[in-house]
Parts: sequence; structure tokens; C-alpha cells
Amino acid sequence: MDYRLEQDLLGNKNIDSRTYSGINTVRALENFDLNSKTVNLSLVKEIALIKKAAAMTNKILKLLPPEKANAIIKASEEIIEGKFDDEFKISAFQGGAGTSTNMNVNEVIANRAIELLGGTKGDYNIVHPLNDVNMSQSTNDVYPSALRIAAIRLIRKLSNSLSSLQEALQMKENEFSNIIKLGRTQLMDALPMTAGQGFGAYSKAIERDRWRIYKVEERLRQINLGGTAIGTGLNATNKYVFMMTDLIQDLTGLGIARSDYPMDITQNCDIFVETSGLLKSCSVNLLKISNDLRLLNSGPRGGIGEVILPKMQTGSTIMPGKVNPVIPEMVAQVSLRVISNDSAITMASSMGQLELNAFTPLIAECLLESLELLDRSVMIFKDKCIDGLKMNTDRCSENLEKSLVSATALVPYLGYDKASSISQKALATGKTIREILLEEQVLPHETIDKILSPIELIRTHIPGK
Amino acid sequence: MDYRLEQDLLGNKNIDSRTYSGINTVRALENFDLNSKTVNLSLVKEIALIKKAAAMTNKILKLLPPEKANAIIKASEEIIEGKFDDEFKISAFQGGAGTSTNMNVNEVIANRAIELLGGTKGDYNIVHPLNDVNMSQSTNDVYPSALRIAAIRLIRKLSNSLSSLQEALQMKENEFSNIIKLGRTQLMDALPMTAGQGFGAYSKAIERDRWRIYKVEERLRQINLGGTAIGTGLNATNKYVFMMTDLIQDLTGLGIARSDYPMDITQNCDIFVETSGLLKSCSVNLLKISNDLRLLNSGPRGGIGEVILPKMQTGSTIMPGKVNPVIPEMVAQVSLRVISNDSAITMASSMGQLELNAFTPLIAECLLESLELLDRSVMIFKDKCIDGLKMNTDRCSENLEKSLVSATALVPYLGYDKASSISQKALATGKTIREILLEEQVLPHETIDKILSPIELIRTHIPGK
Amino acid sequence: MDYRLEQDLLGNKNIDSRTYSGINTVRALENFDLNSKTVNLSLVKEIALIKKAAAMTNKILKLLPPEKANAIIKASEEIIEGKFDDEFKISAFQGGAGTSTNMNVNEVIANRAIELLGGTKGDYNIVHPLNDVNMSQSTNDVYPSALRIAAIRLIRKLSNSLSSLQEALQMKENEFSNIIKLGRTQLMDALPMTAGQGFGAYSKAIERDRWRIYKVEERLRQINLGGTAIGTGLNATNKYVFMMTDLIQDLTGLGIARSDYPMDITQNCDIFVETSGLLKSCSVNLLKISNDLRLLNSGPRGGIGEVILPKMQTGSTIMPGKVNPVIPEMVAQVSLRVISNDSAITMASSMGQLELNAFTPLIAECLLESLELLDRSVMIFKDKCIDGLKMNTDRCSENLEKSLVSATALVPYLGYDKASSISQKALATGKTIREILLEEQVLPHETIDKILSPIELIRTHIPGK
Amino acid sequence: MDYRLEQDLLGNKNIDSRTYSGINTVRALENFDLNSKTVNLSLVKEIALIKKAAAMTNKILKLLPPEKANAIIKASEEIIEGKFDDEFKISAFQGGAGTSTNMNVNEVIANRAIELLGGTKGDYNIVHPLNDVNMSQSTNDVYPSALRIAAIRLIRKLSNSLSSLQEALQMKENEFSNIIKLGRTQLMDALPMTAGQGFGAYSKAIERDRWRIYKVEERLRQINLGGTAIGTGLNATNKYVFMMTDLIQDLTGLGIARSDYPMDITQNCDIFVETSGLLKSCSVNLLKISNDLRLLNSGPRGGIGEVILPKMQTGSTIMPGKVNPVIPEMVAQVSLRVISNDSAITMASSMGQLELNAFTPLIAECLLESLELLDRSVMIFKDKCIDGLKMNTDRCSENLEKSLVSATALVPYLGYDKASSISQKALATGKTIREILLEEQVLPHETIDKILSPIELIRTHIPGK
Repeated sequence: MDYRLEQDLLGNKNIDSRTYSGINTVRALENFDLNSKTVNLSLVKEIALIKKAAAMTNKILKLLPPEKANAIIKASEEIIEGKFDDEFKISAFQGGAGTSTNMNVNEVIANRAIELLGGTKGDYNIVHPLNDVNMSQSTNDVYPSALRIAAIRLIRKLSNSLSSLQEALQMKENEFSNIIKLGRTQLMDALPMTAGQGFGAYSKAIERDRWRIYKVEERLRQINLGGTAIGTGLNATNKYVFMMTDLIQDLTGLGIARSDYPMDITQNCDIFVETSGLLKSCSVNLLKISNDLRLLNSGPRGGIGEVILPKMQTGSTIMPGKVNPVIPEMVAQVSLRVISNDSAITMASSMGQLELNAFTPLIAECLLESLELLDRSVMIFKDKCIDGLKMNTDRCSENLEKSLVSATALVPYLGYDKASSISQKALATGKTIREILLEEQVLPHETIDKILSPIELIRTHIPGK
Repeated sequence: MDYRLEQDLLGNKNIDSRTYSGINTVRALENFDLNSKTVNLSLVKEIALIKKAAAMTNKILKLLPPEKANAIIKASEEIIEGKFDDEFKISAFQGGAGTSTNMNVNEVIANRAIELLGGTKGDYNIVHPLNDVNMSQSTNDVYPSALRIAAIRLIRKLSNSLSSLQEALQMKENEFSNIIKLGRTQLMDALPMTAGQGFGAYSKAIERDRWRIYKVEERLRQINLGGTAIGTGLNATNKYVFMMTDLIQDLTGLGIARSDYPMDITQNCDIFVETSGLLKSCSVNLLKISNDLRLLNSGPRGGIGEVILPKMQTGSTIMPGKVNPVIPEMVAQVSLRVISNDSAITMASSMGQLELNAFTPLIAECLLESLELLDRSVMIFKDKCIDGLKMNTDRCSENLEKSLVSATALVPYLGYDKASSISQKALATGKTIREILLEEQVLPHETIDKILSPIELIRTHIPGK
Repeated sequence: MDYRLEQDLLGNKNIDSRTYSGINTVRALENFDLNSKTVNLSLVKEIALIKKAAAMTNKILKLLPPEKANAIIKASEEIIEGKFDDEFKISAFQGGAGTSTNMNVNEVIANRAIELLGGTKGDYNIVHPLNDVNMSQSTNDVYPSALRIAAIRLIRKLSNSLSSLQEALQMKENEFSNIIKLGRTQLMDALPMTAGQGFGAYSKAIERDRWRIYKVEERLRQINLGGTAIGTGLNATNKYVFMMTDLIQDLTGLGIARSDYPMDITQNCDIFVETSGLLKSCSVNLLKISNDLRLLNSGPRGGIGEVILPKMQTGSTIMPGKVNPVIPEMVAQVSLRVISNDSAITMASSMGQLELNAFTPLIAECLLESLELLDRSVMIFKDKCIDGLKMNTDRCSENLEKSLVSATALVPYLGYDKASSISQKALATGKTIREILLEEQVLPHETIDKILSPIELIRTHIPGK
Repeated sequence: MDYRLEQDLLGNKNIDSRTYSGINTVRALENFDLNSKTVNLSLVKEIALIKKAAAMTNKILKLLPPEKANAIIKASEEIIEGKFDDEFKISAFQGGAGTSTNMNVNEVIANRAIELLGGTKGDYNIVHPLNDVNMSQSTNDVYPSALRIAAIRLIRKLSNSLSSLQEALQMKENEFSNIIKLGRTQLMDALPMTAGQGFGAYSKAIERDRWRIYKVEERLRQINLGGTAIGTGLNATNKYVFMMTDLIQDLTGLGIARSDYPMDITQNCDIFVETSGLLKSCSVNLLKISNDLRLLNSGPRGGIGEVILPKMQTGSTIMPGKVNPVIPEMVAQVSLRVISNDSAITMASSMGQLELNAFTPLIAECLLESLELLDRSVMIFKDKCIDGLKMNTDRCSENLEKSLVSATALVPYLGYDKASSISQKALATGKTIREILLEEQVLPHETIDKILSPIELIRTHIPGK
């Protein structure tokens, strides 16, 4: 194979001459040889976007010659388009607070720019990864800024997916508004309700999730570009800061703003904890809903069986005809993953020390994974589970009719203790509330008719009054 | 001892005639005999406040005779005043979704009201715990509503404490604005900064916490009173719902609102997950700050030693003169507790099923504990650690001067690679950057003077340009 | 009130003359004024036991005069007996790595010993809390040793409770060995089984818990007494170490051993993480079992209803006759608390630095709480839920008979695809597998009879072959 | 493109004729289209190994014709060899309790076996994925058995890696046994120790990890093959069970055993929680050690600087010459990931219901990821951080000499209070303990010399006595 020689403070190293990565990338690949997930490409691409903006800015500020700047810009764009995806294989759990990923982007851009300018990869006199590509920047301002931009884009996507799910749930609320069924608290027969009301409650929860996740974008908009290594801004200029903010706004179409206190953004990760905490709230709602659907769908004959989920695939390699609630099960597992990612983000964020958090690579990996997984699973949940969901109305009626839940309607007439003894008598004898009431002759027939009808028991009023 | 006989669906039971609690409370004490923390009294008192409001409402609606209502109101007020604190000893981990605590309050109020009306405790014909005290209510609307009110009050308190802490940090930002010290990233010498800037960064983080916690109150204001058992409102009336909301507003002075979808509030706990998630973000910041202070205070001689924390107590039973950073250590442990409480709240909330979450007692215990612990520890942190904190300016100078951090200022002049080799040479030889520069004669004296002064290295510019 | 003056390195302080605590305790009460849970008394009492042993040892080694030693021994015994429980009110979240609790014990012993010797509290010339009571010790060897002893005692208790629960589950395994019911996977109808088999599976899980928790005692037996402040043993002697180990063995009746590397025990907390991790495994099993029982008990009419849990208390303040599964709900919440305590223990243990972990107070609080809560809730679970649990045999038969689970027995005869289509046809038409088989005439009558009997479907064989 | 038509209970589907996967795999790819990590290949290969063993067994039992069995065996071996890695792309978060992955393996084997027998892919009359490849099996016995085998293999690997790390730490214990340095508790100067002692304490912790992880293999050895769908064994035979166990032992070389209660293994996941809990303990130790090394390495000039970690890569894109502790940072992040994986495993395991845990795919993904990440990072930690680690002896001496830690040695001579005042005086005046002692003339010169020598302060004795 063909090699070129590169050098850093540790010495020389042969680099495969085909690769656009340089010595720092190669060392990182060796050092963090975990065979693990690699850095999320959406993060890499936002870093490339920042490199592009910096080259544009430094060209205007006459810190970079136009030709060199243009080559850097072009190379950055190619990374964003995905042309160099294979060059970014450093582990997501890399040490160094993201320096290796920043170096990786710097090196790929430099070598590609050198190539565009007619040079040979590795000839950093033409374009230098640090002096030129990284000019006015530090990993410590580039990396968290890129993470925020990547997160905002995914937040918008997730917010839209949650809207879709919410609408799907509302459609079920309407579709099932006339199906009366048994409501249960602590898994015990409680009071009647409509199937629609249940989906309305789910819809409300998802509506809150959408709102929360939509709103947290505001908190992520502040970036610390120009703060350089510790937020003081050494080797950047105020002109650079202002131009960069404007450019990033233009290039991303997002309401990015310059932080008024870059040292804060450089070292504090609470905003990622906040964001992840909201994803966790969303996961809690998804777990609740998916568990409920699995429970209501249980059977088909020996369970509750009030909900019929769309059949998505064969359910068993041994039990013919068995079909499982695989979509809610997937949603539940994604939710658990998001909750456990939140735990990693929390611990990593709390471990920041002094002017930097060294564990931003883990934070980035977990936050972006959570956003991507939630977005996809919410859409699959909607498309492959909620949209085609049906109620088993026979089963709804059957479960409601055999229950004793109408006893609650007796309380305003007979008091709690008497109503309780009627209910217990019905349970013990296998009779209905109505039968016991007729036997005991404690209420006139018309009143019984008025207060025991399920339709009377599903709204805010005292039945028969 | 003297006993009275009470009865429920399970049979009879002797109740100590001195206690205001009834058979349901006694059974709960036996069933949940965990010797654990008992229900948070702030929750009990908000339940009593709801009982008071319900009696006022039902009196106006003529569902309760004025005399009986007044006795219930008086008894509720006495609970709020703390007169019956000893009656509320059921475990915080009780089963039953809070029914036992609601029963406990109902029974104490009923028996106290009976007494006020001249009757004998246990004579529930005079005032009945369920028919009268619990009229128009269910545990499932009372309990989460009380929890929200209790949480809002504590949130306001915590929000104020965080304001105080933020101000204290800002005062340090000003006080230390002229002390130049070493900034560190990944614990390695990085760039100069002022001690004030560091406290400014802490202040910014706490400011976000205060804002987030202040804002989440909005999300907690909706209550489901009148929703009764599953949110459909059976046995309550719309008049009741509207009057109750107004009354709770008046009695609490808080902007409480009626939920437009009580079934949602009855079963979904994501709002508690959201709130707790924000307390977790706050804990992450407190961990970061308290760990930083412990690190900067390390020594007094063999550590970094740049910060001098107020001495609060003798630090060792064996090492004379040792003083430990006990306040930051306490803050850290409280923060870890809040983070672990969040994990319990998350799991419990995700385990809600159908029309109710059976695990609200655990959620309540953890959320209220987190709020109370954070509030207190934030104030102690401010009073006993931040207010009296000093910088060791000699140590700050010493650590900065011996470092090699000014190498970064060379990059715009010499390029990264040359600057790197100068820095490495200084490290290897024990010399300063200036000495190496003079030896190597790569920059004129005046430039060296301009770019190596620490004061030049702490703001957004390119030194010497 | 009457005061005495005490002094420490921070200055003078008035101490209520009635209290046995001294200036260090009072400062700790002020510094950690969190209104939180206080230090677990079982830890305090094991510290007192160590003080007693140290006084006995130092008496023999002639480092303490017999009279003084005897007074210290007597005072320690009184603490162990619970005579001074009210003196130990420092927060469980105290900073200082337990120094305040050790000081608290030292001071109470010193003042009580002074009193026993005829002196006045505060006259530390008679008995000094540090020079005498703490002689040869450091918080850093006393506190973790006491924690281990306290943990071992609770582990033995829990291990016994788990044995009882396991036996109770085995009794149900036998009792229900002839009740055939529907088995479910992913909540969907799967294959027949006996109700006894289900309880056998629970029993196996609890058996593993008991074994694991029993075995972990071995890992907790090593103590670092004599290691003093950092494990090097400064100011203790080898004679002291050996005598102490023997004495602690005698006084506790436990197989306590001296660590061969005290510096390890002083700084590393992985053993508490391991122990807590096993409690977490146990909690996972308790959650699984309690959730299953709630599910199988669901109804009484509109759920699965195959299990009938003992009725423990009235279940609702609004729904008469409702009874809830309160004991499994309590068990579930305790389990969640143990899991969240594990998270606190994990984080705190990982935050140890150099020669000590400053967060042992939090570790101790969480570990001892988990042990105590599990022990109690396991016994309540057994006594109030498992022992009296019944199967609803009618419901078991009904759910099984209407299901289509016998389709699996067709596979060896007809292949999976044909069996699947028969099952789907039965589901769609509402018919039984037998009816479809007879219609389709794919198997002889005798074979059908042989392979569709539930009793044929609950053991390892191919039905009819 | 070329397609073949396949069919299942949901209907027909065109399958790319090049793929060995069938309709069930394709549906799973569509249903779980998360763009996430895919199923761990080590799990897939152990499933293939079980398929091979089942075909061998069923051949002997004459349930499969030799030719068909041999083709299945050959195809299974090719999967194990990695020939079909690209066929296994279903998401790691799939619903269905692993059925899709089992189906995937069944289909690839069937189609490859068909091909080997001269047929055309999709002609399942030749070899049927369920009737033939899955004969006598269910996902519910195959999947957890494969997971256990995969886990055991990784456990052995990790156990060896931990041995290597432990040995490397012991070598440092010896190498540094004569370097005296400052010991610190709560980050404050405490007592002298040798640098070797510190590494000895780390070594002890890792030794426990190795032992625990080595021992847990025993608990994973029981497999439930033959239990089929719910552990009752329907459609398997006892002969099959015994032959399979023997064969799996032979094929794996591991001490695999048949469970005496397969229903337990089928539904309970506590063993994975236990295993993961031990990996968590290991992570806690790795966090402690890596954090300590980062702290001791801090500087190079403005920190503690007592340890010199090997330089692995350039540390900054802006600060020339900066080198970061990237290996400990990577180890810390892997540790946090393992801890958060444990949280996912715990929640997923607790969510098992009745006869199965539907969330085993998440458990498998997290457990295998934790094992693989730990194994790799432990080896990297040893190779790239511990092996080449040096002490900065000058800095060790300097930090120790300026400290006041010898004050502890005064206690047996002067009492705690006097020693404390001497220490405080030294701190306030900037003098040494020796200087104050000489000034105050409280001890003879010879005693001072005897008790203030650092070498006297690092072992179990009372200096000078």
C-alpha cells in the first residue's frame, strides 16, 4: 500500500495515502479502538457547516486568502453532502472532549481542499488543518455549537412526529366516542367511560410532550462560537463572533444566537440534561400508552381483549396463529433506551470540571440517539399501530356488563356503606347490582333505571338528579 | 385502654378511643408497617385544604347542612395548623394510590368534626368520613391536586433560594473580577481567566435553574378536582367544579386552574417527571459547582488551593487541624439524592395503567423530598459556603505563572506546529515560554511583551494585533 | 436554659447543658440543617460497639486506664441499648464522610462516661472524645467497618425473610398443582400450564435472591479497623488490629475479618455497589411477581381474574365495594425505591477520590434503607398477600377453554403453516380449534382427542406420540 | 430486480431473490425501521450454533432426514463463520421478544440449506424454516439460551482482561513502592503514603471485579432449551433436552447445564440484572481509578502533577503542546455507558409479564454491549495508560514537604487539641510543623526527629514509640 508520512508532537506516522484523514484521526482510531458505535454523522456534518462558516468569515476578515477559503468551503460542503461519511469512524466514546472528531473534520477538509487546489494530501503547507481550517476556533466552541444545531434539527423533526401521533390519537378519540367500556383503576373495575375518552387522555399527554420539546429549542439556540478554548475568546475577534452568528443563522435557517457568556456554554451541560429530561418525560408517556395498549389488546380470547391492534407479523416460531403487539413492544424498548440515555447524560454532565466538560462525546452520542430513536419510533407507532387500531365492541360491552361498577351511582342515594354492602353481595352471589337492588327493594324502579344506565355514568353529574 | 368499635367491608375492629383516625387508617398502618418515612405533611395539609374547600362548596350547593359543613371546615383548618400532625403516620410507600392517606384525612376530620358537634368519636351518623367529608370527591382527584399545590408552594420557595444563590455567585463574580488565574480544561492547564469569570459561569447556570423551576409552575397549575374516580366526573357536578377551582385559588393564593380534560390529569404523571427532571438539571449544576469548589479548595498546601472555603467544623477525629469542605459535600449528596429520586419518579410514572397511576404515593414522596432538600441545601450552600468564600491570590498567581498557557497566543504569529514545539520544549526543560522564545529568537521583544501578558489573554481578541 | 461552654478550632460555643452531645455535634446540626432523615440508628449502634471494643482493647494494651475504659464501655453499651437515641439527629446527608456521626458518638460516650465517673458533662479532662474515646481510630476506619457490620446483620434478616417468602410460594406451587390455566407470553394467549407451575417459577427466582444475598455477606466481612485515616495505620498498632478483630467477632457473633489491605477498604466502595446491585436484582423479581399478581387478580369481573388476592382494606373513597391489590402495590414501590437507592449508591461510590470516598453517609443511608425496606416488605408480602392467595378455578377454566392455544399441538402433525391457518380460521369465525379440525377432516378423531386435551399440553413431550 | 413470492398469515410479499432472508425478516425490517444499532452478531451466531445442535439431535432422533439435517448443519456453520453477517440487520430494539431474530436465522439457514440441496431459495418444501430448522424449538428457549452462551464467552474474555489490568496495577505497586507522597482524603492533605500503596488499592478493587465477574458465569450456565414456548416443553422430548445439553457443551466447550425448571429461565431475567450489576460495580472502580489518575496527572504545572500519564495524542486544536488524559476519559465514558445500560436492563427485566419477558432484545443489546465495551476499554486502559505511567517524584516530594500532615503524629504525645492548634498555627503563619514545635518547645528534639519523618508515617504503628 501507499503511505504518506505525517508528524505531530508524538512523532511520525505512516498514513494510508488514500485516506483524507490525517495523523490525529489515525491516532484516535488506535486509541479508542472499542469496536463501538462511531460518532453520529449529524454531529460531524454540523461541525463541517461551522468550518464552512468560519472559512467564509475569515475570508471576509482577510485572515484567509480567498482561494484557500474557497477550497475549505467546498470541502466542507462535500462532507455535509455525505461524500466522506466513511472517513468518520472514531468511536462515539472517545476521550478528549471531542477534539478527535474536530481534528478528523479539520483533516478531511484540509486534505480535500489541498486536493482541490491541486496539491497532494498531507502537504499542509497548502492548507493546514489547524492554522487554516480550525482558524479562530477551538473544539470547545465548535463541538458544543454543532451539538446544539444538530439537536435543534432533530427536535423539530421529533416535534412534528409527535404532532402526527397526537392527531392520530385524537382521530381515535372521535372514532370511538360512542363505545362505552369499563374504566379501571389499579387494574380493578372502576367506572364506565368511552373508549374515545381514553384516547383523548393519551392525546393530551402527547400534546404536552410536543409542546415541551418544541419549546426547549429556545434554550439550545445560544452557541459559544468565538469563545474558543475556555470561553474567554482568545485568538478570536468580536467581528468574527458577530459574523459567524449571522452566517450560521443563514446556513441553517435556525434562530441561532450568540451567547452573552460563552464561558458558561463552554463548561455547563445542564441544557442537555434539561432536553434529555423532556425526552424522558415523553418516553414515560409512550411507555404508559404502549403498555396500556398491550394490556387492552391482551388475548385474543383469554385476556382483556377490548382493543385490536393491527397485525404486523407472525408472532411465534412455535405457536401457529399467534400474533404479538410488536410495535408497542418496540416503542417501550426505545423508551427505556431513552430513559437510560438520560441517566448517562445526567452523570456525564455532572462530571464537568472547571472550564470544560470532558465527557461531551458521550452526551452527544446519547442525546442524538435518543432524539433519532424517538422520532422514528413515534412515527412507526402512529403508522403501524395507532392508525389501524380497532375496538372490539363486543368485548367492551361484555366486560362492562358483567362488572359491578354502577355501585358508585348508588352512593348519593344510599350512602357509601350501604352501596358497598350491595356491591359485595353482588360479587359474592354472582348477581348484578340491579338484581340485588330489586331484591332489597331500597330504591324505586324508575330511579334504578335512571342511575344504572352506563350512559349516565360517563359525565360530570349525579345520575338521576 | 379504651376502645371504640368500627366496621368496614372486612369486618369489625377495635380502635383506640383517643385517636381521631378510624378503621381505614388503622388497617393501613398495619398493612404498610414498613417502619419507613411517613407521608409528607405538606401533602396532608393540602388535602385538608381541599376538604375545607369541598365542605364550603357543598354547603353553598346545599348538599351539606351548614352546621356539619362548618365543623368539617374547622377540623380541616386544625389539620392545616398542625394540630393533628401525630395522626398521620402511614408509610410514604403505601399501596392504594393514596386512598389510605385520603381516608386518614377524612377520618381525622370526621372525628374531630363529630367532637366539635358534641358527639363521640366514631359516631359517623353525625359526620361521615365518606358521605360527608369526602362528598363529591375521590382520592384520584383529591390526591394529585393536593400534590400539585404542595409542589407549587415548594417550587416558589426553591425558586427564591436559587435567586439568592445566584446573587451570591454574582457578588463573587464582581469581587474577584481582577484576580487572574489559570483556567483548566480536562484538568489540564489551558488559558488564563479571572476568578470572577468562573463565578459568572456558575451564576449563569443557576440562573437557568431558577428560570426553569419558576416556569414549570405553569404546568402544575391544572388540577382535576371534580373528575372523581377516573376523570369522568361521576357524582360531582359542573357547579362544584367551578366553585372549587375558585375557592382553591382563594385559599391558596395560587393561580390554580381547572383541567379541561380531568381524565388526563388523573392518569398521566408526566408533569411530575418533567418537574423532577428540572430538579435533576439543577442538581447537575450543583454537583458541578460543588465539585469545582472542592477541587479548587484542595490542599491547603498539597492541592490546587486557589479557593479558600469558610471553615465550618473540625474535619477529622484523628488528623488535627484538618478542615473539610463539608458544605459542598452535603450539597453533592443532596444532589445525588435528587437524581436518584428522579429515577424513582420516572419508573413509577411509567408504570401507570389505564385510568390511574397506582404509584403516586412514591411519586409524591420523592418529588416533595427533592424539593425540600434542594431548597434547604441551596440556602445552606449560599450562607455557609459561597458568601464567605475567598480566593487565595498568591496561589492563583503562582499556578498561573509556572504554567505554559501563553503558548496559545503564539499561534497567530508562529502557527500551531511551531508554537507546539516551543511549548513542549519549555515543558521538557522546565523553562518558561518566554525563555524559550528568547533563546530561539523567533519574535521581536516588543511582540513577546505584548502577547505574553496574562491580562492580554482573557478576552476576545488576538493579542498584539 | 443552662449552658456549658465548649471549644474547637473555630472558637467557643454554648452547649445546652442537658445534652450529651458536644460542640462538634452541635456544629453539624447547624451545618446540615436539612430537616431530612437522620442517620440510621443501626449504624450509630455499630459505631458504639466499635468504641466499646476499642476501649476494651486499649485497656488491655494499657493505653487507657481501666476506670476510664470501663466508663467508656458502659456508655457505649447504653447507646447500643437505645438509651440515647434522641442524641443522634444529624442529617443522613451530612458532609464530612461520617466524621460528624463519629464525633457525635464520641461526644455522647465521653459525656456519659464523664457523668458515670462523677464529673460534669463537658469536662473533657476526665474523658476526652478524641484522645480517649476515639483512641487508635479514625472515622475512616470506624465508619465503613460499622456500616459493614450493620449491613451484614440486615442481610441475614433479609435472607431469612426471603426464605419464608420462597417457602410460601412453594406451598402455592403444591396447592395449585392441579389447576390448569392459560399461559401467556407478551400478554397473548400462549400454551396451557398449571397455576402451580407459575408459583414454582416465582419461587425459583426468590430462591436465587436469597442465595445471592446470603453469599454477599462474605464480601462484607473484611473491615479496615486499625487502618486509621488512609489505611496506612498511623497511630494504631498491629496488636490493636488483631485484638480488635477478635473482639468484634465476639461482640457481634459474626465472622468479621481484618482486611489484608486496609487502604483498599478505606477508599473503595464497590462492595456496597455489589450488595446494592443484588438488592436491585431482588427488587426486579419482586416487581415481576407483584405486577403479575396484580394482573392475574385484575377484575374482579372485567379483568383476567384468575387469582384472588386476600382483601386487606377498603379500596376507594368513592367506589363502594372496590378492593385494591394494596400489598403488591406497596411491594412494587419499595422495589422502585431500592432500585433508585442503587442509583444513588452507584453514583456516590464512583465519586470517591484518592484515599477516601467523601459520600459514604449517602451510601450508608441508601444501603441500610434498602435492606430494611426489603426485609419488611418481603415479610408483609408473604403474610398479607401470598399466604392467603387463592385461584379462581372457574375463571382459569373459562379463559383456557375459549382460547386457541391447542393449535401448537397440531404442528408435529400438520406443519406450522396449516396449523396457523386453522388457528386463524378459528379466531375469525369464533369457533374452536376442534370444530375447525372436524370441519376440515385433516386428522382422525382419536388423534384429535389425544392431542387437544389440556392435560396433554403441560409437559415435555409431543402429544399423541 | 428479481423477486420471489413468499407468504405468511398476513398475505404475500415479494422478496428480493438474492437475499437468504425470508418474509418474516423482511416484515421485521419494515416494522422496526429505526435506523438504529442492529442485533449483536455474537447473539446471532450462538443462535446458529443452537440450530446446528438441534439439527444434529433431530437427525439422531430420526425426526429429520439425514440429508436435510446435514444441509441445516452446514448452513448454520456458515453463519457462525460470518459468511452471512449482512443478512442480520434487524434493529436491536425489535419488538416480539426476539422472534424476528430467531426467524431471521431460521430463514437464512433454510434458504442456504435449500441451495445446498440444489433447490431454489424460497422453496420451503425442501427445507422449512419452522418445521425443520426450528424443530423442537421456540424463540423463548433458543433466544435466552443463546444470550447466556454469548454472555459467558464475553465474561471469560473480560475476566482475562481484568486479570491483565490487575497485574499491570500490581507492577506499578512494586515499581513505586519507595516513592513517598501525600495521601488525601476529601481532597484535603491527609497523611503520607507510598505511591505504590495507591496502586495496590486499585489493584485490590480490580481483583474483586475479576473474581465477581468470573464467578457469575456459574449462574448463567443453566439454559432452558427444550422448554419451548413457556417452559413446559410442549413439542419437545426429554431425549431431545438431554442430547441438546450434551451437544451444546461439546460445541461450545462451556459447562452448560439444563435448567431443572425451564419455566423459571423462560420468564425471569434477574440473572442478567445480577450480571449487569457486577459490570456496574466494575465500572464504579474504573471511574474511581480513571478519575484519580486524571486528578493526579492534572497540570502539567498548575495542578497536582504527581502522576505522568503516557501521551497518546495531541490534545487541543487551539492550545499548542496541550496533551489530555484521553484514555482515562474514554474509560470513564465507557463506564458511564455500562451504568446506564444497567439501568435499561433493570427496567426491562422488571417489566417481564407472566410467562415471558417481551423486552429481552433490549436486555441482550445492553448486556452484550456492556461486556464488549468493558473488555476492550480495560485492555486499552492497561496498554495505553497504566503500563507506561510514571510518577513525578519531584512533585511528590514537593507536595508532601509543604504540607502539614505530620501533625497527626503529635496526637499520642500532645493530645488532639494541642496538635490541632499547632497545625492551625503553621497554616496561618506559613511555617512548618517542625518550626512551630521548635518555637513552642513542647517536645524534645530527638522525639521531633523520630516522629516527623515521612517514612515513619506510612505504616501501622505509633511513631517514636
